[in-house]
Amino acid sequence: MSDTKPKVVLAYSGGLDTSVILKWLCEKGYDVIAFCANVGQFEEDFSAIKAKALSVGASKCVISDLRKDFVDNYIFEAVKSNAIYESRYLLGTSIARPCISQEMIRIANEEGAQYIAHGATGKGNDQVRFEMCAQALSPKVRAIAPWRDPEFIESFKGRKDLLAYCTKHGIPVDAKPKANYSIDENMYHTSYESGQLEDANCGPDESMFKMTTSPKTAPETPDVVEIEFKNGIPIKITNAADNTEITDSLELFLYCNKIAGKHGVGRIDIVENRFVGIKSRGVYETPGGTLLREAHLDLEGICMDREVKRITEGLASEFARLCYNGFWFAPEMDLIRNSIDFSQRDVEGTVRIELYKGNVTIMGRSSPKALYNADLASMDIEGGGDAFDYNPGDAQGFIRINSVRLKTYAALRAKFD
Amino acid sequence: MSDTKPKVVLAYSGGLDTSVILKWLCEKGYDVIAFCANVGQFEEDFSAIKAKALSVGASKCVISDLRKDFVDNYIFEAVKSNAIYESRYLLGTSIARPCISQEMIRIANEEGAQYIAHGATGKGNDQVRFEMCAQALSPKVRAIAPWRDPEFIESFKGRKDLLAYCTKHGIPVDAKPKANYSIDENMYHTSYESGQLEDANCGPDESMFKMTTSPKTAPETPDVVEIEFKNGIPIKITNAADNTEITDSLELFLYCNKIAGKHGVGRIDIVENRFVGIKSRGVYETPGGTLLREAHLDLEGICMDREVKRITEGLASEFARLCYNGFWFAPEMDLIRNSIDFSQRDVEGTVRIELYKGNVTIMGRSSPKALYNADLASMDIEGGGDAFDYNPGDAQGFIRINSVRLKTYAALRAKFD
Amino acid sequence: MSDTKPKVVLAYSGGLDTSVILKWLCEKGYDVIAFCANVGQFEEDFSAIKAKALSVGASKCVISDLRKDFVDNYIFEAVKSNAIYESRYLLGTSIARPCISQEMIRIANEEGAQYIAHGATGKGNDQVRFEMCAQALSPKVRAIAPWRDPEFIESFKGRKDLLAYCTKHGIPVDAKPKANYSIDENMYHTSYESGQLEDANCGPDESMFKMTTSPKTAPETPDVVEIEFKNGIPIKITNAADNTEITDSLELFLYCNKIAGKHGVGRIDIVENRFVGIKSRGVYETPGGTLLREAHLDLEGICMDREVKRITEGLASEFARLCYNGFWFAPEMDLIRNSIDFSQRDVEGTVRIELYKGNVTIMGRSSPKALYNADLASMDIEGGGDAFDYNPGDAQGFIRINSVRLKTYAALRAKFD
Amino acid sequence: MSDTKPKVVLAYSGGLDTSVILKWLCEKGYDVIAFCANVGQFEEDFSAIKAKALSVGASKCVISDLRKDFVDNYIFEAVKSNAIYESRYLLGTSIARPCISQEMIRIANEEGAQYIAHGATGKGNDQVRFEMCAQALSPKVRAIAPWRDPEFIESFKGRKDLLAYCTKHGIPVDAKPKANYSIDENMYHTSYESGQLEDANCGPDESMFKMTTSPKTAPETPDVVEIEFKNGIPIKITNAADNTEITDSLELFLYCNKIAGKHGVGRIDIVENRFVGIKSRGVYETPGGTLLREAHLDLEGICMDREVKRITEGLASEFARLCYNGFWFAPEMDLIRNSIDFSQRDVEGTVRIELYKGNVTIMGRSSPKALYNADLASMDIEGGGDAFDYNPGDAQGFIRINSVRLKTYAALRAKFD
Repeated sequence: MSDTKPKVVLAYSGGLDTSVILKWLCEKGYDVIAFCANVGQFEEDFSAIKAKALSVGASKCVISDLRKDFVDNYIFEAVKSNAIYESRYLLGTSIARPCISQEMIRIANEEGAQYIAHGATGKGNDQVRFEMCAQALSPKVRAIAPWRDPEFIESFKGRKDLLAYCTKHGIPVDAKPKANYSIDENMYHTSYESGQLEDANCGPDESMFKMTTSPKTAPETPDVVEIEFKNGIPIKITNAADNTEITDSLELFLYCNKIAGKHGVGRIDIVENRFVGIKSRGVYETPGGTLLREAHLDLEGICMDREVKRITEGLASEFARLCYNGFWFAPEMDLIRNSIDFSQRDVEGTVRIELYKGNVTIMGRSSPKALYNADLASMDIEGGGDAFDYNPGDAQGFIRINSVRLKTYAALRAKFD
Repeated sequence: MSDTKPKVVLAYSGGLDTSVILKWLCEKGYDVIAFCANVGQFEEDFSAIKAKALSVGASKCVISDLRKDFVDNYIFEAVKSNAIYESRYLLGTSIARPCISQEMIRIANEEGAQYIAHGATGKGNDQVRFEMCAQALSPKVRAIAPWRDPEFIESFKGRKDLLAYCTKHGIPVDAKPKANYSIDENMYHTSYESGQLEDANCGPDESMFKMTTSPKTAPETPDVVEIEFKNGIPIKITNAADNTEITDSLELFLYCNKIAGKHGVGRIDIVENRFVGIKSRGVYETPGGTLLREAHLDLEGICMDREVKRITEGLASEFARLCYNGFWFAPEMDLIRNSIDFSQRDVEGTVRIELYKGNVTIMGRSSPKALYNADLASMDIEGGGDAFDYNPGDAQGFIRINSVRLKTYAALRAKFD
Repeated sequence: MSDTKPKVVLAYSGGLDTSVILKWLCEKGYDVIAFCANVGQFEEDFSAIKAKALSVGASKCVISDLRKDFVDNYIFEAVKSNAIYESRYLLGTSIARPCISQEMIRIANEEGAQYIAHGATGKGNDQVRFEMCAQALSPKVRAIAPWRDPEFIESFKGRKDLLAYCTKHGIPVDAKPKANYSIDENMYHTSYESGQLEDANCGPDESMFKMTTSPKTAPETPDVVEIEFKNGIPIKITNAADNTEITDSLELFLYCNKIAGKHGVGRIDIVENRFVGIKSRGVYETPGGTLLREAHLDLEGICMDREVKRITEGLASEFARLCYNGFWFAPEMDLIRNSIDFSQRDVEGTVRIELYKGNVTIMGRSSPKALYNADLASMDIEGGGDAFDYNPGDAQGFIRINSVRLKTYAALRAKFD
Repeated sequence: MSDTKPKVVLAYSGGLDTSVILKWLCEKGYDVIAFCANVGQFEEDFSAIKAKALSVGASKCVISDLRKDFVDNYIFEAVKSNAIYESRYLLGTSIARPCISQEMIRIANEEGAQYIAHGATGKGNDQVRFEMCAQALSPKVRAIAPWRDPEFIESFKGRKDLLAYCTKHGIPVDAKPKANYSIDENMYHTSYESGQLEDANCGPDESMFKMTTSPKTAPETPDVVEIEFKNGIPIKITNAADNTEITDSLELFLYCNKIAGKHGVGRIDIVENRFVGIKSRGVYETPGGTLLREAHLDLEGICMDREVKRITEGLASEFARLCYNGFWFAPEMDLIRNSIDFSQRDVEGTVRIELYKGNVTIMGRSSPKALYNADLASMDIEGGGDAFDYNPGDAQGFIRINSVRLKTYAALRAKFD
């Protein structure tokens, strides 16, 4: 009887690997609930995925539209903290994982499933992220990771074995030949890695990119947008050229993707450090995220105190590392997110940006809560307006006191070097 | 008699302000030695500067070509540490100051001068940098900063007063009208600030830029260069298209400027935080520095251990702050530079980069000392080659142990929230 | 007429220096409002101070009992963050300054005074702390610091000049000869510095200490107390031996001082780094603070997650530096205090401590919100109880994955060293 | 034939667990080379251990005297960096592990052994430290950890099973009943944990301590010692009372242990965070280490620049974490140790310390390279001697410039709060 079988929620993409895994789990005696998260993948046919899951043997297939949740509670959190991993990676895959895991656990609880399963490899970050999020949210749930299972690995040594298994079990296979690299897609970014990209000295093909036009073929005419933030969160985007004005968070982010992608913004090609200790080469495109990052960073320039910025930069760096490593639901992440929220109280205002052939150019910024004060800054105005009475003469004392340590040190070095 | 007057070395640019200051110091009874550092300013006529200094009243004018020193001991130190202030500013002005100060102190010692003087304002960073460097190098030297002197400020309330003073004293004034912003130039960058740029919401004029073509008018055809590093320092640049191959550090850097400037690389527009506590708006162009930063950062990706990277990022952030704030000759800077040097032992190899309309695109990288290992990274290869025997099964334990804290915390929160 | 004079609020201690300053300010034409903060100084006669202030020439003397405010909003904030400067100093003087400044500014506003004045020296930290707090709270208020005033310094070159001035103006002087060191007292600590203590190689006299018995003459019989915390704040102290049970914060802290002082707890002798760049030798006694620090730190051991602890340690270190340097009312301090508060949500429970001849010995601790789990920790119990199912076998994978980077690095070093 | 068996080097203590493991490995077909490191355990009989190892079945037993190596390359490295884990633990066990592992790997290489084995549990830190050090030093060596082996765990569910196994195999068992806690000993410290100590609310028995007298029974008469350092390393200890003067590092450290132990110095009782995510209660005594830490920290007070101290504190905190977690032979540890070495160039001089009933009291310190300058510090001396000419008036400018940010922030808050 089906209801006596152990239940597993499988993160299912409709692709070759997870279809084989679905069937293999059925064969192992599991009641498989396929789960596919809509986090804004490009041109995905979710009803086809559902149909395929059921045809392969899932007892149920749940398609969850997480796009709004993903934007509001994950993407904008990353924007708010200027999160960037190792100075370059905007965490596009990393930040989707807790969003997907949370839904997977919700389904597992609803369905009374004791297991979750995924098709992530045993060398990568995603296994870590999925399972750590799952364990934090539901400590008793167990993970099944076939790509770490010696028997599964032995059975499926390459793509050929997977295809043979599909033929044997009547699992339909995508007609077009597989690209020689792997792809992860969501609304925030598309990533490309492995296969031909494992040669770190060999650039990506132009043909692989999905979200961005090449800077070389991008329009000759720039677009100019204005993005408004409150508490460090984008709340409005406008494009005067075509009367665009969007305030809904999901629509706003999709527009950022569209306009930045159109102008070839947000591609990177890096070698990064995985949590499992392996270096990995990845190519990413994050159009809307890149645009929002530049806008947010710029707005902090006029709204955020220097020392708050310094401390928050350190926290943001922890945020990025924790997110990358799968510690979204960790106590230290709660601490850091609380701190970043506090730092954003006054990050409010509007940034005007030009997009052109891969360039994100700041045209201007303004804020009702600016700490920037043109009078105070001005070289032509003595003092800085009424409240500030900046006295240039004070700088001498400032310099001389700051030099006290340096003079003491110089005297010591002069004596002993 | 001239040799009984107090001697002062004045940082002299030939411009309006420092020419007035030169004369004013003479009137105050100083023997003024004008000093002009050649740190690679664009189209500067140093012999004209010298002639003007002497005509205005300097007893001597020293022009020092510091370009090689500037590249070797300052610019490349910044490149090596990926130094960037507040996530965006490459420290173009900041890093020239200690180089210039050191020479100014050398001259002061040689000439037996007890004073140095400069034309920096009392609200800015440069006064701090010049004087702190000077005090660290020669504790007894005293700084004269007319723009902090109440009498001088009272006498020269605006440009009109400066011009009147020139007329009165027969000081020649540049015929072309002054731009409505101030400029600081050296080989590493050109900066633009104040005047019309004090309105943070108003973009820069295209006409101001000196080192970079606009991305919009940059060539349709990209250039591809290869940059080789050793110990984190660029040692060779090649451009196969025109058989360029340069190894001399100064020539190499000038070529970086030329090629990156040609393709519109390295412009930014930011509001930053000065050391004196004022926010300030600046527009910068740093073509060669931007190119080298991207190349160096990328090479670290394959050569530097993850945790070394993490720690070094923190040190680099201190480096940037110290450099920006004028603490070049500080004990903590010596500590940090020593640490960064150590971190660069294995940063060696070549990065291939395409330059196109403002974009710096990494095409590939390789290193004889790479920690990146394609076999170990490969999703298609079990293990990672002979020495590594990566076992995917190990990841389960790794994940589960990393989750122990998270489960404990989740249990606590479940109970108390 | 008195009300046309400029008004100044003077931080007045009743001692020689501030009495001279009071008179000197009167002579300079100020209407002086003397202000003396009761922050729990040992055996202070506040009515005598008030009488003296008025007799010397103050138009008014305000004595403010700030003890409760000091405990609740300053001392306990320091305890909560484990604040310690340069690994040793508990910030006893530093943390009183913002408390006193805030009241001084309140009085200045109430009285319509445009100035504040203090007797702190021009080489120390206190001038910085008083004035920075004052400027943050009331940007337009101006500080008068006679010990930085060239005329004042010239007039009073040593103690002899001060005494002569008192004789001349009929200012009563304390009969007993001044100790050859200076003292700062409040409820949190007493500090001793300068004079004979400037010789860093010469120990303090036993006779100087006010709050603590010497460990050598402390009782042979220990006391055992239990301290209960909630949200990181002490809320109850009990001593079963004498049925002590105190919950009022002020009484609780005074009892901590008494019991720890009785047992010779909390003396240190250090050379520390002042904000003005000078190294300074200080001797401090902080009995209650030392006791509470040990208790709080210990409780965090069972209640606080490892990574939260790690991050909070960094923030606490910033807290200490900011407090020491006078940045209590700074934006970055608000950020840090918010973060520390968040970290203390679960720091709740009781610590049992023995006090004996300078020793603070933890006897045990317990918490309703403990993350410590004896079953999970036990070497004798497999797993860790129901929710945790710790599997020792997982540790192998954990170790092996953590070693991946190390093996890669070792291989590189083997090749190149 | 013995030489065809797989060879394993077993870390052997002579105790119950490792004797059982030795036999069990023999039974499993291994050629067992017992290895016992002399890292200064208290009253250990190494020849008895050797005899027992051979009698139980080892083909060989290597006793290595690592005491000098341990002091010079591990203990003094910890002293130099002020290493302390979670503000309290001096890393006594942690820091011995790489020293022992390095020798174990040396023997394994010499003997051609492919395996190492140890008796550490699957929940603790030591398994991690041993195995990570081993893997870094010899990537191909494999670890055997019976306490993580399901079969071994199944066979030996408690002490009773271990004893029965001994009886069965004629393995001699220590006559005296086992203490209800476990002990780890070396020259640096003795630790006590598990068993009765798992109740975090129950204090340790006085009887357990081996290296320290109780403060309560320690001598009434203090000892005073002088410790001299160079480059942050202790190079001489003197006790004028008995004409002690020691310069040999091993003898010096043993004397520190003796004299500090005699006076009851260095006991702590804490709950700490293991690397495997479990909180653990431990009681430690570290007499000599505590003495040296206080001395070194104090000397840094007069010799080390404030900002170097600040940065080095952060690095020391990383050092402690890395050491605790087993990352001694990691690339980031090399970076940090290099940086700490640099910071110690000028840490040179002598500290005089009194030891009395648990108290370590600094009596004075001096250094030929002191940055401390009594004249500069003095409140009674204007300026600070010839080179420094500290001008109190400068402090006003210093304060006012440092307040600029605070006033700007206060104005913003006043408007929006």
